[in-house]
Amino acid sequence: MPKGYAIKDVKNWTDFQVIDFDLKKPADDDIDIAITHYVDCIGDGEGYMVDTYNSIWPDGSIAQGGYSTNIRTPEQFVFPIPDGMKSEHAAPMLCAGLTLYSPLRRNNVGPGKRVGIVGIGGLGHFGVMFAKAMDAEVIAISHSASKKEDALKMGASQFIATKEDPNWFERFKNKPFDLIVNTASSAAVDIPAMISALKVDGSIISVGMPEDLIQLRVQNLAMRCSSIGSSHIGSKVEAMEMLKLANEKNVVPWIELIDMKDCSKAIERVSKGDIRYRFVLKQDLEKPE
Amino acid sequence: MPKGYAIKDVKNWTDFQVIDFDLKKPADDDIDIAITHYVDCIGDGEGYMVDTYNSIWPDGSIAQGGYSTNIRTPEQFVFPIPDGMKSEHAAPMLCAGLTLYSPLRRNNVGPGKRVGIVGIGGLGHFGVMFAKAMDAEVIAISHSASKKEDALKMGASQFIATKEDPNWFERFKNKPFDLIVNTASSAAVDIPAMISALKVDGSIISVGMPEDLIQLRVQNLAMRCSSIGSSHIGSKVEAMEMLKLANEKNVVPWIELIDMKDCSKAIERVSKGDIRYRFVLKQDLEKPE
Repeated sequence: MPKGYAIKDVKNWTDFQVIDFDLKKPADDDIDIAITHYVDCIGDGEGYMVDTYNSIWPDGSIAQGGYSTNIRTPEQFVFPIPDGMKSEHAAPMLCAGLTLYSPLRRNNVGPGKRVGIVGIGGLGHFGVMFAKAMDAEVIAISHSASKKEDALKMGASQFIATKEDPNWFERFKNKPFDLIVNTASSAAVDIPAMISALKVDGSIISVGMPEDLIQLRVQNLAMRCSSIGSSHIGSKVEAMEMLKLANEKNVVPWIELIDMKDCSKAIERVSKGDIRYRFVLKQDLEKPE
Repeated sequence: MPKGYAIKDVKNWTDFQVIDFDLKKPADDDIDIAITHYVDCIGDGEGYMVDTYNSIWPDGSIAQGGYSTNIRTPEQFVFPIPDGMKSEHAAPMLCAGLTLYSPLRRNNVGPGKRVGIVGIGGLGHFGVMFAKAMDAEVIAISHSASKKEDALKMGASQFIATKEDPNWFERFKNKPFDLIVNTASSAAVDIPAMISALKVDGSIISVGMPEDLIQLRVQNLAMRCSSIGSSHIGSKVEAMEMLKLANEKNVVPWIELIDMKDCSKAIERVSKGDIRYRFVLKQDLEKPE
């Protein structure tokens, strides 16, 4: 029998016990989806208390997240995937998709709003599709023009290649953004320039995680009553809303499905930028005895 | 006759003309209050389009703001001071007061919210009083303990002296802040430490204007879905609400009233920190012929 960790009391979640559990035999088309949050918190903040992926359990072992072969979670953190949605489409939504859906929703994206998505990759392509599904005007902002055609297909009304058009933000001062979601993992993005293209009370939400420091002056933010924030995936409430929206508006991630045993190839290709736009790993590993 | 500038068409505000105008003879207890915003914008964002203090008019002259001897403004930017409120109390509210009221209101401060005010000076003392008047729990955060007694009188439920208690934010991780308004004009304030004491979706609003850069990592913000923002005074709507609240809840600024001819002494004392908490200048200058 495999061993697992069970939370006896979610309200005091440090209290774990090691248990034996039975595995359901996976069906051929099953994809294991990690429910990575165990939290003593309700509502939209629930994802922020504990994050199991790469986290250390009370016995010192490291949580494997989506690389786990088995997952056990309290029932309040399990939710249905809508009928008709393929598992390989649901899977990347529960991390990359929700990472973009959550800041769009928290910032009230909808009809009449102008949203910029910086970086058109695994994260950003969800941003373009979800903001469009929420009936906002979406402007895709990328380094080069190579993804222009794709971004317009995803729902962007305009595409900006910053390499060719470095002063793009000047044009938007008279038709400024309500929200810019920055998915770039490089700190080379010019944050003060983007702030100058925000509406009063507009926000930049950075969901890319550059290692470098953000550097800016308070004065940049003061002149537009603006803010820079970040967020971390999203809540169950948001996940369920996102799945419903995706099903209703036919938001389909652009993915490449490969076997989990080939994940090192996927990682190599990600580092070369050779994926449009998200790999999904299909579980094909031996189950532990 | 003195000369002035008049805006012919507020919607296209670059169109000015020089006009002659009559001066009303000031009454002995008049204090000139600058209405410093002329904007083509409605609602809460109206303060962000043009700022006349220190701004350059179309002919190259510099706007004097509160140091003006005469002020003319479009009627939509003039509003009444509530009956019973002294001019010397209204005056500092229209800049320092509104600078604090606006971020409190925009961040929905009210009963059940925990608000930190960093820096107990001309700005911060309004933050403590207004947050208390809005029925929030207010925690005053200052460098030294010298203002403790005052801050508790203003309505703070707790006072933190960061010099004596440098790890104060650790204590708040289990009872975190909804909002921290930072009035410090020094960048020495430890922003990442303050972020760690925010609730999920909490904000830091910096209304102090340090010349140094803010430096922080996106990851600091991501773990609490938090943001750092700023704002710039406030709107007419907010100003009228603030005055109404101040009148109803008896919010009285802690001021020292001096003649405008002594303003150089006031500036010296401000630079030494020798004012609790705001100078108000009474107009006593000769009117221009």
